[in-house]
Parts: sequence; structure tokens; C-alpha cells
Amino acid sequence: MNPTLARAVPAPSPALALFASVRAHSAHLAAPLGDADATVQSMPDASPAKWHLAHTTWFFEAMVLERFAPGYAPYSPSFSYLFNSYYETLGPRQPRPRRGMITRPSLDEIMAYRAHVDAAIERLLAAGASPEAEEMVELGCHHEQQHQELLLTDILHLFAQNPLHPAYREPAPAAVGHEAPEAAWIGFEGGIVEIGHDGAGFGYDCEGPRHRTLIEPFRLSDRLVTNAEWLAFVEAGGYRDPLLWLSEGWAQVNAEGWAHPLYWLERDGLWWSMTLNGLQPLDPAAPVAHVSYFEADAFAAWAGARLPTEAEWEHAATSLGALPPQTPDARLRPKPAEDAPGLKQMFGEVWQWTRSPFTPYPRFAKAEGAVGEYNGKFMCGQFVLRGSSLATPPGHARASYRNFFQPDKRWQFSGLRLAEDA
Amino acid sequence: MNPTLARAVPAPSPALALFASVRAHSAHLAAPLGDADATVQSMPDASPAKWHLAHTTWFFEAMVLERFAPGYAPYSPSFSYLFNSYYETLGPRQPRPRRGMITRPSLDEIMAYRAHVDAAIERLLAAGASPEAEEMVELGCHHEQQHQELLLTDILHLFAQNPLHPAYREPAPAAVGHEAPEAAWIGFEGGIVEIGHDGAGFGYDCEGPRHRTLIEPFRLSDRLVTNAEWLAFVEAGGYRDPLLWLSEGWAQVNAEGWAHPLYWLERDGLWWSMTLNGLQPLDPAAPVAHVSYFEADAFAAWAGARLPTEAEWEHAATSLGALPPQTPDARLRPKPAEDAPGLKQMFGEVWQWTRSPFTPYPRFAKAEGAVGEYNGKFMCGQFVLRGSSLATPPGHARASYRNFFQPDKRWQFSGLRLAEDA
Amino acid sequence: MNPTLARAVPAPSPALALFASVRAHSAHLAAPLGDADATVQSMPDASPAKWHLAHTTWFFEAMVLERFAPGYAPYSPSFSYLFNSYYETLGPRQPRPRRGMITRPSLDEIMAYRAHVDAAIERLLAAGASPEAEEMVELGCHHEQQHQELLLTDILHLFAQNPLHPAYREPAPAAVGHEAPEAAWIGFEGGIVEIGHDGAGFGYDCEGPRHRTLIEPFRLSDRLVTNAEWLAFVEAGGYRDPLLWLSEGWAQVNAEGWAHPLYWLERDGLWWSMTLNGLQPLDPAAPVAHVSYFEADAFAAWAGARLPTEAEWEHAATSLGALPPQTPDARLRPKPAEDAPGLKQMFGEVWQWTRSPFTPYPRFAKAEGAVGEYNGKFMCGQFVLRGSSLATPPGHARASYRNFFQPDKRWQFSGLRLAEDA
Amino acid sequence: MNPTLARAVPAPSPALALFASVRAHSAHLAAPLGDADATVQSMPDASPAKWHLAHTTWFFEAMVLERFAPGYAPYSPSFSYLFNSYYETLGPRQPRPRRGMITRPSLDEIMAYRAHVDAAIERLLAAGASPEAEEMVELGCHHEQQHQELLLTDILHLFAQNPLHPAYREPAPAAVGHEAPEAAWIGFEGGIVEIGHDGAGFGYDCEGPRHRTLIEPFRLSDRLVTNAEWLAFVEAGGYRDPLLWLSEGWAQVNAEGWAHPLYWLERDGLWWSMTLNGLQPLDPAAPVAHVSYFEADAFAAWAGARLPTEAEWEHAATSLGALPPQTPDARLRPKPAEDAPGLKQMFGEVWQWTRSPFTPYPRFAKAEGAVGEYNGKFMCGQFVLRGSSLATPPGHARASYRNFFQPDKRWQFSGLRLAEDA
Repeated sequence: MNPTLARAVPAPSPALALFASVRAHSAHLAAPLGDADATVQSMPDASPAKWHLAHTTWFFEAMVLERFAPGYAPYSPSFSYLFNSYYETLGPRQPRPRRGMITRPSLDEIMAYRAHVDAAIERLLAAGASPEAEEMVELGCHHEQQHQELLLTDILHLFAQNPLHPAYREPAPAAVGHEAPEAAWIGFEGGIVEIGHDGAGFGYDCEGPRHRTLIEPFRLSDRLVTNAEWLAFVEAGGYRDPLLWLSEGWAQVNAEGWAHPLYWLERDGLWWSMTLNGLQPLDPAAPVAHVSYFEADAFAAWAGARLPTEAEWEHAATSLGALPPQTPDARLRPKPAEDAPGLKQMFGEVWQWTRSPFTPYPRFAKAEGAVGEYNGKFMCGQFVLRGSSLATPPGHARASYRNFFQPDKRWQFSGLRLAEDA
Repeated sequence: MNPTLARAVPAPSPALALFASVRAHSAHLAAPLGDADATVQSMPDASPAKWHLAHTTWFFEAMVLERFAPGYAPYSPSFSYLFNSYYETLGPRQPRPRRGMITRPSLDEIMAYRAHVDAAIERLLAAGASPEAEEMVELGCHHEQQHQELLLTDILHLFAQNPLHPAYREPAPAAVGHEAPEAAWIGFEGGIVEIGHDGAGFGYDCEGPRHRTLIEPFRLSDRLVTNAEWLAFVEAGGYRDPLLWLSEGWAQVNAEGWAHPLYWLERDGLWWSMTLNGLQPLDPAAPVAHVSYFEADAFAAWAGARLPTEAEWEHAATSLGALPPQTPDARLRPKPAEDAPGLKQMFGEVWQWTRSPFTPYPRFAKAEGAVGEYNGKFMCGQFVLRGSSLATPPGHARASYRNFFQPDKRWQFSGLRLAEDA
Repeated sequence: MNPTLARAVPAPSPALALFASVRAHSAHLAAPLGDADATVQSMPDASPAKWHLAHTTWFFEAMVLERFAPGYAPYSPSFSYLFNSYYETLGPRQPRPRRGMITRPSLDEIMAYRAHVDAAIERLLAAGASPEAEEMVELGCHHEQQHQELLLTDILHLFAQNPLHPAYREPAPAAVGHEAPEAAWIGFEGGIVEIGHDGAGFGYDCEGPRHRTLIEPFRLSDRLVTNAEWLAFVEAGGYRDPLLWLSEGWAQVNAEGWAHPLYWLERDGLWWSMTLNGLQPLDPAAPVAHVSYFEADAFAAWAGARLPTEAEWEHAATSLGALPPQTPDARLRPKPAEDAPGLKQMFGEVWQWTRSPFTPYPRFAKAEGAVGEYNGKFMCGQFVLRGSSLATPPGHARASYRNFFQPDKRWQFSGLRLAEDA
Repeated sequence: MNPTLARAVPAPSPALALFASVRAHSAHLAAPLGDADATVQSMPDASPAKWHLAHTTWFFEAMVLERFAPGYAPYSPSFSYLFNSYYETLGPRQPRPRRGMITRPSLDEIMAYRAHVDAAIERLLAAGASPEAEEMVELGCHHEQQHQELLLTDILHLFAQNPLHPAYREPAPAAVGHEAPEAAWIGFEGGIVEIGHDGAGFGYDCEGPRHRTLIEPFRLSDRLVTNAEWLAFVEAGGYRDPLLWLSEGWAQVNAEGWAHPLYWLERDGLWWSMTLNGLQPLDPAAPVAHVSYFEADAFAAWAGARLPTEAEWEHAATSLGALPPQTPDARLRPKPAEDAPGLKQMFGEVWQWTRSPFTPYPRFAKAEGAVGEYNGKFMCGQFVLRGSSLATPPGHARASYRNFFQPDKRWQFSGLRLAEDA
């Protein structure tokens, strides 16, 4: 074999397959959407689908191509302004609440932009990129996976504003309904445990450093709280008793008139829920979703329990070997727990509110440059959610993952699992 | 000739030709728009193009077909909720600031809805409709013409939010620039004059009754105020001198940071204006557009003049025989006055603010039913504009026409003509 | 007689007696107030009593003493900032919504400030002031009379915020209740009439120029609308029928939850009203007070009538010789009409909303300088009220007087009288 | 000795002396205030001084007298409505942002109310109250001490709104200015330590349970950050560099135009600070005060350090024996650190922001009833401050004390001390 030729064949890029699969998944998610669906912004917290598709693409341009692909010229000079999210380091940008004003470029044009960048990244990786470039591509893929989940939750929010209750996708044939199993406590001993990402495989900066922490003996429910249990809370007047609520939560309940989870709807005595499959009868056995931290905390108080800390949750998950799903699942609604002993539903149904504010781990330091803006600057006023949801792309979840939202947010697939002191 | 047969051939409907032409014009206006362009709402005052197209169609359903076409079933039961504008009489409706949330039905589906209603109206008219039905079709046509102008001003506002400054239509070859002629005063004597619609031809309720009014001798400028004149006002510090402004206007100037008309933009010392042809160099000789009543009033004070009353304007127009254009004009920007003696630009360039609040004429009475909600309930807090603009469909304008907006609104094609006491 | 001595005795100042009496009346109005009562601002529209007392004093300093009293030094350099109301010409000032933050100077200190300025003005007038100075003193007195009425309406608003419903003054012994007489129409012929101030005696700039106006034949109610009539409107669902309301008024009704006039309160099926005498049973025969233009207009629509124009009101008042009260009246609540024929209650009970927006009379021109800011800059978005109220100081009202407020304001003593076309 | 008589002499009440001294201190704090000063509310976060004086008195009525003093009748039935703060358990109440509307009762009347309740409590305690009643009196005293500090910070905020910059008390003779000593790090080893209140003496519920926690080796600055150091941060552009700030903090900086601590004022190149002694030259050696958590966090980032956790702070204080002042100090402004080795200024100057969100300690449980609303319901969205300030009453501070505020609040005496990882 000709050694010269051998040298000319670069080592296969570890990031290439991930890149191809992640980018294809975004296109799959966009398929049911029309140009208008993909353009409108239903609230400042949400972004248009088109924006998600373009922003994740811009991320590869700004973080990879402009730094590692010699001679790469940005696809369009205005796109950096239009599709930067919040990187102060990377210049001014379209104000977040005005993302829905951008009717042009159209969805088709955004898909052309994606194709252009895909080709450039694939060329770069095929030609043998530096480890640093490979790492940034990997980060860009995980970043895009986050936006894939947001694309779904944002579309759900948008369609929920439409009195016609359109379905993002038509529902699969209904599963045969079954009861949720009785919840059971699983006990854990206290002591010094280690949590946080250990550096093997991908992890966000805020997941580390891995460190010791002290936990006290506790018990964790073996499954998620269900719609039926939440309905009992509603019917017991849970939304009308101030003593169950945090002060700020009670103010929110009254200001917004909250009386049930987001997307619940009562018609003629029956409960429905707006879903990505359109308006559907509420499944009592399925986990409750679309509740805020305020609501989760009040429910736990009403139930005589509490929410777990994130350390407790992670310790339970790792010590009992709970693993996130690795294969795609076409479901767009949470499903009931299996009737089997042991810890269930840690991943793949709904994110689980913990009582832990999102704060830096000991010795956490922000990275230099734009990447340093990724998580650290949000460490204030938010609570950590653990696990993953049905909308989390396969391969994206792990036990050390720290999702976070403000305590009044409800449009994510957010639910809860109870804990108590042992 | 067989008299029986003769009876079976209905008289040609007077409204049919109008209906066909008006409906076709809306389709022409929608042609350059994509689904996203037609769906997004850029501010609560504006509506999506799709909404204009659907609402005007619903008007024919609710006001004509449901009342005069036996057996007509509404195209979709939800459309009445989605596309009612403000008729309390006709039931609940999508809240105005949320009109932009309706991504489905898509623009294509709205065009199908239009075709369905067009066919039904044409069948009704062809079969010989009652005079009352004919009259409602005529009202519906004039109503749709109002929305045609709004469709254009709303699209301009939407596209102006886009940093890319897209063009709704590409500009026609530029006219050879010319100077505006010197403005001259035209004098009018005072006395009792008659104004208001005399009942011949179509007119809105608020244009009548025709009545006597007393005017004092006055002078009116023979042309509109130009961009060059407005620029002199800007450069003289007009936006910084509180003594020129109404108190509420001055508060607005400061709250919004107004320093020039809406859509003006300074770049490297040159002035540009966002238009339906995209971003274009400011034409100094053309009439200023997109100024509020507050600005028009302050300009007039600065110029040592005042705005005319609506009675003065109408008396000038009718006594000197000013007529609105009757044929289509593809222009999307105002053009300079001709260099010719006499009263110019009364119609077809920009609406002209008057100093008259929009109030009922003597003996005005609201109609019964939903039609009574047309104008009377807005007789508070708005000022009358007279004339018409380049965006007003041909055939829609007349000397007695009373347009009206709140004094802070700027997104219409609104300009001014000066007056003074004689 | 020694001519030298004769020259030394200046002519008696025409303004001196007015000044002394007006200033004493303010002190009388302040007497029931504590330091806290006089300091708090209950809403941006209202001002603290202390502010009224100081601002009217500052007006004499800025408009008279600083211009006409040689060597006069301002009492305190900061007072111009603190107590200027809205004169852009006269420099920056405490923002209106922050007037209630000024706990120091205290009420006692403000009274000392008043005494200082009183002495200076009296010295100036006693020494023989120029006609221009006399005229400004007269303007200052009328200005202070306006604030005397506002002081009372603002205190009522403040005390109405207090759950204890304190009384500003204890009520006089209750009059024997009596029924209001049946309302009757008084007819007026149309034609060209003259309205506006004729220059004899004091008048504000906006009351002139006196001018001709054309009115059509009309009828005016001989008395004000009563609480009993308003209660019938309430009970007939007047606040729940959108067709009675102006569009903006209906929005206000819903946004604020209006269901009755300001200060009405229902307890156990009985109606009460918060008054300057504290909480009192509603007097059915007395004129309704504290209604907005929106409410007055809706009531008139419900009653099958309309509000008069200001020209109609003034013509009726002058042609029938209605005169305002000239002597003080200790009443703090409106009283029922006498049972006597003819036009009643034109003055001295409640201001009467007209359907006329506050606009300039023909040939009105703003004065030069700070005085020019008095009225002209408010000629937008307000409606004219005519007559006067029980809180109007004696000598302040006249037939040409134009009071004006925004159509949503309710804290003045504002009521209505019906009119209709003849 | 007659045993019957002996039994009749109750044991001296432990709470009586505390009660007398705390109540007298409130009167001392109120002495410089007029009725208006004590009534106005300068922002929703602040309360009128009168309200503090009355609310703390109502607390003794509701929590002690009504429960433990047989036959006690409330002083005024309306006071429970007026002066309840946030106890949902104890009924409806005057909305917090409307506390400043209550001009009556006057300050004198509130002082009479205080005297009435003082006498009743003293009678109760003198007669021998139950341990539970004694405990509630003690809680009421500590509660009142909290309001004593707030009374001062709220008055400072109110007086800072007044362009005259009035002084609450005239300043004491100025101390001889001196430089702050160089800051030095003090090192601490990591490990499991105990923090929290141990039950000996008074402590709030949220200070316990005492519990183990794991800390890593760290260093703590031996003194507070000074005004001079903060000025360097200002001059280095600290308020203009987004990378130093939390995302929410950066939004706040821009929305409010923050460019320096609250109460700083630049005039002709010199820096001043509004204080309880009026406007005073900024003391460069004194600790910076009136900074928010956002600012403290940004400063620490700029300085290459971080804020301590509350566990680190408490461990440092207790392991090095830092003690709060026990005797009154008439100072109303922070003073520079002594030039002496060791940990300084842990108490008595300014509260110190920690990076710890205010969360429940392990096994914390809310008390039953109204007392349970004391702290637990605020465990969301706030950060812990440790130490105490010059405005903290003597005897109120301790090492386990957890003060807490939202991260944008600046009107407290809040400063910072730096930490870093060892």
C-alpha cells in the first residue's frame, strides 16, 4: 500500500456520524411544519421553529467554520445578527421577543442554509479536523439537541394558542389504557457521595466538576406523580390554599388564575389536554406534565412529602443504574409507568423538578470566550430539573444532566417525583 | 318574447361587477406574500394579511349569506370566532392582539375559503338578490377596500421590523427626480356651507347626514408638506422643543424617542425610508408620510400655520372640484406634486390630518344591529384624516370620506397640508 | 389736600381684595388636614394638598414677584423645582407621579412659605403695581381657585383609599330628604349664536375668542341626572351591554371592572357613597357624581338621548340667564333639584359632561411665554365639562367656562344633563 | 413567710426586660420623624415608618394578647386589616403597595396604640404568663427588631427621593479619615462542619436544624470591599461589560441604567452618597453599601474571586469567634476596618451577600399556624446575606442568622466580602 496515499486518508471523524444523525433529526422534526407554523413566536420564552433551525446552524458557522475552516465565508452577513441567541461576545442580535417578526428568510430558505452549512462541516470533518474543532462540532450537536426539544415544546405552545387545537402529528393508535401501579418508596442511606460529570463522554460545563457532597438518608418514590394524583390535588382545593404555596408562587397563581396544569381543559365535566397530537382526553395513569416548580412544590407539600435535591436524584439514578433510552421513540405524550418493582421513569417521560436552585458546583469556572456564556450566566433564579422527557432526543440524556428553568415556567415537559427524609 | 321567461331572467346585479373586481384586487395584493408573511402580526394595531383576507370574507358570510342565502351553511364553524373583528353583536372572537397566533388555516386554505364564499355570493347575486342583500354586498365591498389599504400598511409595518428590509414588490424604474413646486395659499371665503354625504352613491354612516356648518374665511396650501420641509423641521430641532407640541404628544416623543417620521433611517449622513419597495433613498420632493397627528400639529405650529378642519378641507375639495383617481396605479410610494397652479394632491398620495376630532355629525344616529357598530363606537379620542392615499383602492375615495386614527398612530400613509386663518 | 401726599397714596389695587379672599379660602380648606393627609399622593392624576398649597404660591412668585417686585429673592431655590407643575418654559421639575415623595417641607413649613409670599404680594399691590402685574395677580387667583377644587377632589380620592373612610369634615345636619322633580325638556331654536368669553371680566384664554357658531334646534333637560336614575341604569345591566358604549369605554369597563360610579359601595343590599363627609347613604334624589365621559355617554344612549354640545349648553345658560352662586356654601355633597319650573342646577352641583372634545375656538392663539402653556397644549383627547360643582369656589364659575378632562376620569364632581335633537 | 403570698408573686418574666428595651428603641427611632415622614411609602418594597410601628404592635396583639390574655379586646377592629403584613392565616389585609395610603390613624394615634398594647403586654407578663406566651413575646421582640432595621432603610429610601436630601439625624462630628488596611486572605480547611442554630437562645425557624455540611478548603477576605475598590470597578467599566454579569443582572443593569451603587451621586467630579445623615462625601475607606447581589457577584468576577457560601461564612465566623456588637452605636453610616490583623467587620457594618440561595436546611419543617408563614414561604428566588449591619439593633445578630433578599434589591445596607477556592 502506498504510504503517501495512506497518509492522505484522514482518520474517520468521531463527530461526523453524530453530526449527520443530529442534523437529520432536526429536519425530521421540521417536516410537519408549514412556513407560518415555523415562523410565529407565541411568547417571549419560546422561539420560532425556523429560528431554532437557523440558530443551531449559525452556531456551527460561528463556533466551527469561522474558526477552523480556512477561507469560509458566512452564508449571509445578516444571519449572525438574526440568529445569535444570547452571546454578548459575538455581537448584537435580534431582540429575543422579536424573533417572530422575521418572515423572511422563509422556511425553505432556512433549509437551504442548513444544507450549505452541513456540506461545509462535512467537508471540514472529512478532511480531518483538529481535536478542538471536533470538540466544537460535538458541542454544536448537543446544543442542537437541546433546541430539538425546545422546538417541540415551542410548537406545542404555539398550537395551544390556536382555538382549532391543531395536531403537530396525528396520534399513533391508542395504547390500551391501564392503571398506574401504586407508588412505593425506595430508601437510600446518607453519607458522602460523588456527583457530577466525570469527564468520560460529553457533558456541559455546569455538570462538573465531579465532587463530593453530603446527603442525609432519604426515600424517593419509584415512579412519577400521575395525572390522577394531580386531579385529586385540584379537587382538594390545592390551587386555593395559600399555605401550600411559596409566596411568589401564590402571587403567580392569583395573577394568572392558575387552577390546573398548563394545557388542561375541562369541557362538560371531562378533562382534556392539548398535546402534540392535538386535544386528547387526559390519561389519568400517565405522569402529569407542564407543571411549574411552584406547582410541584405545592403538590409535594400537600402530599406530605418534598421534592428531591438534585444530588439525591443523581445518586439514586447512578446507584440503581437507571439509564436513559438510546433509541428513537415516536411518542409525543408521556405514558404510564410499567407495573414492575424498582425505580421507574427516571428518563424519557417528563423532566423532574428538584428543590435545588441552579448554582455552580464547587470549583466550577466559566470557560473563556463565547462558550463561557453557555450556562454560568444563568445561575440565578432557576431550579434544576433532572432526568429527561419524551421530547429529549435519544443520546442526549445522562444522569449528570442539569436542566434548569425559572420556577414559574410550565411549557416544558416538566413533572415531578416525590421524596422524603428517612 | 315570453313574459314568463323574461321574469325568470333576473335583472343584472349592480353589485356583482363591484364584488368581482374588489375580490380580485385582494388576491392581487396577496400575491407577493408567503404563508409566513401573511400570518405574523407585527403589533396589536396591525393584523395579519391572512386575517384581512379571511375577515372580509367572513363579513360576506355573516352579513349576506347567513341572512339572505337560504340554506347557506358557514364554511367552518370556527371561522366566525377566528375572523370576527369587533362586532360584539356577533359573538365572541379571537382577541385582537392574538390574531398572529393562527398559523393554521394556512394562506392556501384561506384562499380556498375565499373561493367558496365568492361562488356563493355570485350565485346569490346572479339569482337576483333583494335590494337589502345587494346593499350589504356593496357595504362588504367597501369594507374590503378599507382592509386592502390596511393590508398594505400592515405588511409595510411587518417588513419594517425585519433587519433585512425586504421589499413587498420590487420598485418600478425610478421616475426622474424633480423639485416640488413652491407651496401657495388658496383663499376661501367664510359662511354657511354644506358638508357630508348627500346619499347619492355609497357612503358610510358617519359621513352623513349632510348638514350646514359655519366656516370662517381661511387659506389652504395648494400642495402637501414634503419630506424636504419635514427635514428642515427635524434639523431645526422640532422634535426637541416642547412648546411646539401638545402635552400628550410631547410625552409620546420622549417615551418613544421620536426624532423623525416612522420608517426614516439615517445612515452615514444620508436619509432613507423603508417602503413597500424596500429601503429607498428619501425623496425630498415627495409628500412626507407616516407622521402622527401629534407630529403634524407640531409641524404646523413650527411653520406658523395650523391644520385645516375637516369642514374646510371638504369645502375646498368640493368647491374646487378635486376628484380622487378612478384607475389603478401600481405605485407604492407617494410622488411629488406637479408643477401646475391650483389645488393638488387632495387624493391619492397620503391621508391628510385635520384638526377635527372624529365626532358625530348633527343628527347622526347609529344603525340598528351589527352594522351600527361600524363607526359610531369609535367617536372618541381619534382625529379625522381626509383625502386618500396611494394605497386606497381606486373607487374607494370621495370628498366626504372620513378616515380616523388616534393621534399617536404613524403606520398609515398619513401626511398633512397646511391651513391658516384668512 | 397736599398733592404730594395724594400722589403717595396709590390707587386701591383691584386685585388685592380678591387675592386676600382667595388665599384665605385655601387656608380654610387646609384646616382639617394633618401633615400626612396633606402629603400623600393617591394616584398620578391627583396631587398632595401640600403641593396644591405650595404650587399656587410658587405661581405668584414666578409669575408676579420675580417679574414685577424689584429685588425679590425666591423664598427657596429648590421650591421652583419642587412646585412647578408643567411649565416647560420655567425649567425642570419634580415628576408629577412623584409629588407624594416630598415629606419635607412639612405642611407647617408650606404655610410659612404662603405667609411670606402673601406679605410680598400685598406689599407689591399696596405700593401700586402695574396693570400687567395686577393682571397676573388676578390670573394667579383664578389659578389658585382651580387648585382649590382639585384639593378637595384629590383629598376625597385619598380618603377613599383608606378602609376607615375618614371624613374630611363632619357632615352638617342632614337635610330632610325629598324626591327629585320629574325632569322636563326645555326647547331651543337653532341658528347662528355667539359663544365664548366677551372680554368683560376675567376669562381663560381658551374661553375665547367669542365667535359665531351654528346650532340646530335642540332640547335640554331642566335638571341633572339623579342617583336614582343612574341606579336604574345599573340595574338594567347598563354596565354589561357593549352596544351602549364607545369602544374605548367598553374596554375600560372591562379592564377596571366598572359596575357603578366611583365611590359607590354596596353593603348588604344598600348603596353608600364615599364623600368628603365620610361614607354616607346614597341620596337617590341628588345628582349622580363621579362618572366618566364614557359612562355619561353610555347612560345617555340607554336613555335614548345624548349629551349636549358645549355650544348648546352655553347658549341655554346665557339665553335663560342661569347664574353661578356668588356666596360660599359649606356643602360637600350635591343636593337635589328644587321642585320649580325652569332650568335648574346649571352651576354649583356637578360639572356636566358635554359631547364636545376640547378644541381651540376659531382664531384661538396661544399666548407668548409660560402663560401660553396654560390650556392650549391640552387640546387633545379631552372632553369639555360645563357649569361648576359644589367644590368650585364662589366667583370662579361663569357661563363661558370650559373645564376639560380625559373621558375615563371619574374623581371630579362630574355628572350629566341630557339633551336631544328637536 | 406566707406561702400563699409567695405563690402570688410570679417569677420574673424573662421576656419583660427585652420587651421594654425593644419597644423603647422603636420609639427612639421614630423620634426624628414627622407625621408625613412616617406615612409615605416610597416603593412597594418599602413600608411607611408608621406601618412598621403599628404592624409590630399588631403582631403582639394577634400572636400574644388575643391568645393568652383572657378578655383582651383588640384596640381597633380595623387595625388587623390595616397592619397584617402577609399572614394569609390571619385574614385579609391592606395590599402591600397601598400601605402608604393610610394617612389616618396619624403617627400620634399609632403611638397611643403602642402605649395601649405595651401596657397590656406588661400586665400579662407581670402576672406570670405561660412559657408559650413568653416565647411568643420573645418572637415578637425579635420580629420588631427586624422591622427596626427596615424602618431605617425605608426612611433612607424615602428621603433619597426628595431632591432636598433631608437628614434623618444630623451627623455626629466626623471621624478623622483613615485608609482602609490592605485586604488579606484567611485560609480555612475543608471537611464536614456543623452549621445552623443549636437551640440555645433565640433563633428563627430557618436557622435550623443544626446540621452537618461538607465544605472544601477556601479563603476568605479579612475585611469588606470598600468604596474605593468599588470605584475602581466603576472606572474600569464594570457596569458596561456583560461578561461579568449574570444574564438577569445584565438585563437589570440596562433596564435601570445602573452605573454605580444606589445612593451614589456624582457632582462636578466628586462622589457623594445619600445617607441617613443627608448627602455626604463618599468615604473611600468605608465598606461599600447598597449594592445588589447582581452587582456583588459581578464585582467578585471582576476581582477574580467569588462570594462565599453561607456555610463558609458561618464556619469562618464561629471558628474564629467573631461576635456581633452588643451595645448601641449611634452611627448611621458604615466605618472603615481597623488596621489590625485577623477577621474584621463580620458584624455591624453591612450585610454580606453570599452565593447561597435561600433554601431550607435538611429536615427543615415549617411550624404549624401563622408562625409557619414566617420564613419558609420565601425560600425561592432570594439569596442569603450574613452578618449584620450598623442598622441592626444590638442583640439581634448572631452567626447563624440568615437574612435574605432578591438579587436585585439594593436599599438595604448590603455589601460584600470576597472568597476564593484554596
